[in-house]
Amino acid sequence: MTNTQVTHVQIDNYGPWTVTPEPRREVDLQTLQSRLYADLSQLFGNRNGYVFFSRFDNMIAVTNGLDVDDHAMIQESVGNRYPVTMSMAVATGTTPAKALGDATSELQDAGSAQDEHRREILRGRTIDEEFRTEADVQIAHFDVNDATGKYTDELNEFDTFIHIEQGYAELMRYMRQAHGSLSFFVGGDNVIAVCPDLDADDYRDAIDHVHEAVDVDLKVGVGRGRTAQNAGMAAKHALEECRATGADVELDF
Amino acid sequence: MTNTQVTHVQIDNYGPWTVTPEPRREVDLQTLQSRLYADLSQLFGNRNGYVFFSRFDNMIAVTNGLDVDDHAMIQESVGNRYPVTMSMAVATGTTPAKALGDATSELQDAGSAQDEHRREILRGRTIDEEFRTEADVQIAHFDVNDATGKYTDELNEFDTFIHIEQGYAELMRYMRQAHGSLSFFVGGDNVIAVCPDLDADDYRDAIDHVHEAVDVDLKVGVGRGRTAQNAGMAAKHALEECRATGADVELDF
Amino acid sequence: MTNTQVTHVQIDNYGPWTVTPEPRREVDLQTLQSRLYADLSQLFGNRNGYVFFSRFDNMIAVTNGLDVDDHAMIQESVGNRYPVTMSMAVATGTTPAKALGDATSELQDAGSAQDEHRREILRGRTIDEEFRTEADVQIAHFDVNDATGKYTDELNEFDTFIHIEQGYAELMRYMRQAHGSLSFFVGGDNVIAVCPDLDADDYRDAIDHVHEAVDVDLKVGVGRGRTAQNAGMAAKHALEECRATGADVELDF
Amino acid sequence: MTNTQVTHVQIDNYGPWTVTPEPRREVDLQTLQSRLYADLSQLFGNRNGYVFFSRFDNMIAVTNGLDVDDHAMIQESVGNRYPVTMSMAVATGTTPAKALGDATSELQDAGSAQDEHRREILRGRTIDEEFRTEADVQIAHFDVNDATGKYTDELNEFDTFIHIEQGYAELMRYMRQAHGSLSFFVGGDNVIAVCPDLDADDYRDAIDHVHEAVDVDLKVGVGRGRTAQNAGMAAKHALEECRATGADVELDF
Repeated sequence: MTNTQVTHVQIDNYGPWTVTPEPRREVDLQTLQSRLYADLSQLFGNRNGYVFFSRFDNMIAVTNGLDVDDHAMIQESVGNRYPVTMSMAVATGTTPAKALGDATSELQDAGSAQDEHRREILRGRTIDEEFRTEADVQIAHFDVNDATGKYTDELNEFDTFIHIEQGYAELMRYMRQAHGSLSFFVGGDNVIAVCPDLDADDYRDAIDHVHEAVDVDLKVGVGRGRTAQNAGMAAKHALEECRATGADVELDF
Repeated sequence: MTNTQVTHVQIDNYGPWTVTPEPRREVDLQTLQSRLYADLSQLFGNRNGYVFFSRFDNMIAVTNGLDVDDHAMIQESVGNRYPVTMSMAVATGTTPAKALGDATSELQDAGSAQDEHRREILRGRTIDEEFRTEADVQIAHFDVNDATGKYTDELNEFDTFIHIEQGYAELMRYMRQAHGSLSFFVGGDNVIAVCPDLDADDYRDAIDHVHEAVDVDLKVGVGRGRTAQNAGMAAKHALEECRATGADVELDF
Repeated sequence: MTNTQVTHVQIDNYGPWTVTPEPRREVDLQTLQSRLYADLSQLFGNRNGYVFFSRFDNMIAVTNGLDVDDHAMIQESVGNRYPVTMSMAVATGTTPAKALGDATSELQDAGSAQDEHRREILRGRTIDEEFRTEADVQIAHFDVNDATGKYTDELNEFDTFIHIEQGYAELMRYMRQAHGSLSFFVGGDNVIAVCPDLDADDYRDAIDHVHEAVDVDLKVGVGRGRTAQNAGMAAKHALEECRATGADVELDF
Repeated sequence: MTNTQVTHVQIDNYGPWTVTPEPRREVDLQTLQSRLYADLSQLFGNRNGYVFFSRFDNMIAVTNGLDVDDHAMIQESVGNRYPVTMSMAVATGTTPAKALGDATSELQDAGSAQDEHRREILRGRTIDEEFRTEADVQIAHFDVNDATGKYTDELNEFDTFIHIEQGYAELMRYMRQAHGSLSFFVGGDNVIAVCPDLDADDYRDAIDHVHEAVDVDLKVGVGRGRTAQNAGMAAKHALEECRATGADVELDF
């Protein structure tokens, strides 16, 4: 049984800020968003968590191993260095989607994402050390078979991007509906999915589904661990195993 | 008639680098990718260009106003500060897709994206100053109607993300096929499309198509300019006009 | 008795790299150096350490609370994201200067700073958890009395800078020779000194010495703690107390 | 005759901000300051200017080639991405010190550095394109003879730092008083001085002075150019020439 701890990160009142008093330069917004994401990637990541940029103004993190004080420090550090602040809520659950659902509800209960008076909310509960296990997090790392040979070196870059994107859109929806998994595009031809306790057949079904729906061929390595970092690194090694053997699914447990 | 100058930016041999000698920590890769994007956003942006992260290892920029020397300086600056290098090709065309197609071909002719000996390619032609006009770039800035009220404040964050993502996937494909436009998700509920010379009906059709296909309701502000920055800022103001008047399409020209 | 744990951070073979194959653009070197320092500031700092930029290619950190694995993770993260690597050695001692002396010796024993084959050294010992105390680190935070009124708002900025700099140069030398303390300029009119177990008279002497030598008037707040962050924050509060009361020396213990 | 254009950059009301409502974590301030400097290094630098961190809350830039609009864009970009804003004034003069003096006066006339109502001042005049020449900027790049062999590989890092720092403190003061030059430590054992039209004897005198005063041996390469980047790169090549020939002073013009 997995026990994924998920944090919903939301920039406070960001939309209105981007157009007040007038629309701000897009290149500055892009810089701000991607650097904030990079910082969170280090801040969560160097405590063995993972954070995904998803919509940039709302980000989703897997935070097993971080407690509420760690979250508070991250929130304070961002507040000290950016022109915007962020709210966070953390929750756990047997599926990542359930955990995120509870985290999002905590934020919504505290006020609208565009409520100018709701700032730096920090709510929720983390897993006590004594209840943590080596099977708390399951992470699947997908990539596209021969993406360089079939797409990058053959099509114009936007058409390559469309293929990757359609594969991702189909996978994210399927994994969410069938399994309560949260799947994130992480660049190139890579998708990382945060999953409950799934087996090889479940992953094979997902790959088949994407192949049938949008004709994009995936393979996947899956890992398990006490933290996102442990599970994710195991998944990467399993994916390397796929590359070496030609397998479509490899589980590192 | 638009005359979009498009640059295809490609990190050299990036996939192999990420797993050599062993898979690198995902959080470091995410930090590297998003900071490189942030830097390019400033480097292109402060010369009035726009760059989009698309797949992160391959990025697409609108570079009207930048010449080959500007590109060379950007390439050198990245080479001096990152553990990876990047190749670039630049081309122009009446549709952004055609321009990108030519740029991508230049890179492909120089070697595979995963050729370890192909490094820091810089090819292509920029528009001579005398041929530049105020109508060279057309940019459309879409967002989702009442995304905060309908999604962010109501659904769990991943389900909100799925809606935004499905809307984007549909729009990007439609705009590419119908018009040779390149559309990019830029965070929140925002999509920026680089377009040829389209009119209000074209945009209305696109919005209708997305509504029918995936039930996501968009509006759009459109601007025109000598550079991406000019056209994009005009588009933002037109989108503010939509917000003020309730219109679905506003053209700022 | 203090027990300061000091880490010497050294970029490997940096000098030669900056001019190979030709001198690199200074602005890129400055960007690289200051961002590396900023990253280390977060990486050490969010584990309650402090790092000082000193010469940028060689940096000095107070790392009580970080173990060797933490150092290894920081070293790996930098190696993954920068075009240069860094070596580190860590040691402890009753004065910060003694601790640093041992750390530097470890690096020197491993090879020259400009040995192209010496890369990513990590040596030394950290304090076992059971031996750590609330008095391990003593930090003094100095600033210049009325620097804004006397200098910044009156002189040209370089002449202000000269005054601050001469005060710093005198203080750093005195504190090193008299007490084995390590003092670092941290911007504005602020100097942070990492000290052994000094008392109010010791600080008063230092202030008098600087006043007599270069006519710059300092005040100082001093804190003590299990980590640099604890001691440093206590020092800041003590310095605020100086501002409130007009005292020259305040000890927060 | 040189005609150096100097910009004084000052973070608005920074001191009070760092302790409001309570002292902020030092590591966050260090990160903020060094990243702001890195950004300015890119923003000025990629227009061929140089910026020096000096006191971090006050920075000094050589901006030949940048006009007032360029400054305004830089100011806006920082305002969009940081929790603090900055004021700037620009002036020219036959010595860098005179130019800076005028720039600083512009800021002082606009209000105190700690006036909470003085924000984002932008004043001064830049050199019209028609008056710019290839001799506008003279830059000298000093380093310490055999710093690695004599200091870095021999002494503890702080004692090395003291030697470098005493050499710098002496040089900065001498070059300011004798020649109206502005000298900045830029890391390692390097100092960059922005100078009026000095000749080889002037530099030899400065080196002799530092040798006699603090027993630190310097050499210097000097370049001249239309911009800081041109002059600075010529100086670096001249310094490489010193390394090759053993000369103490090389002028690249």
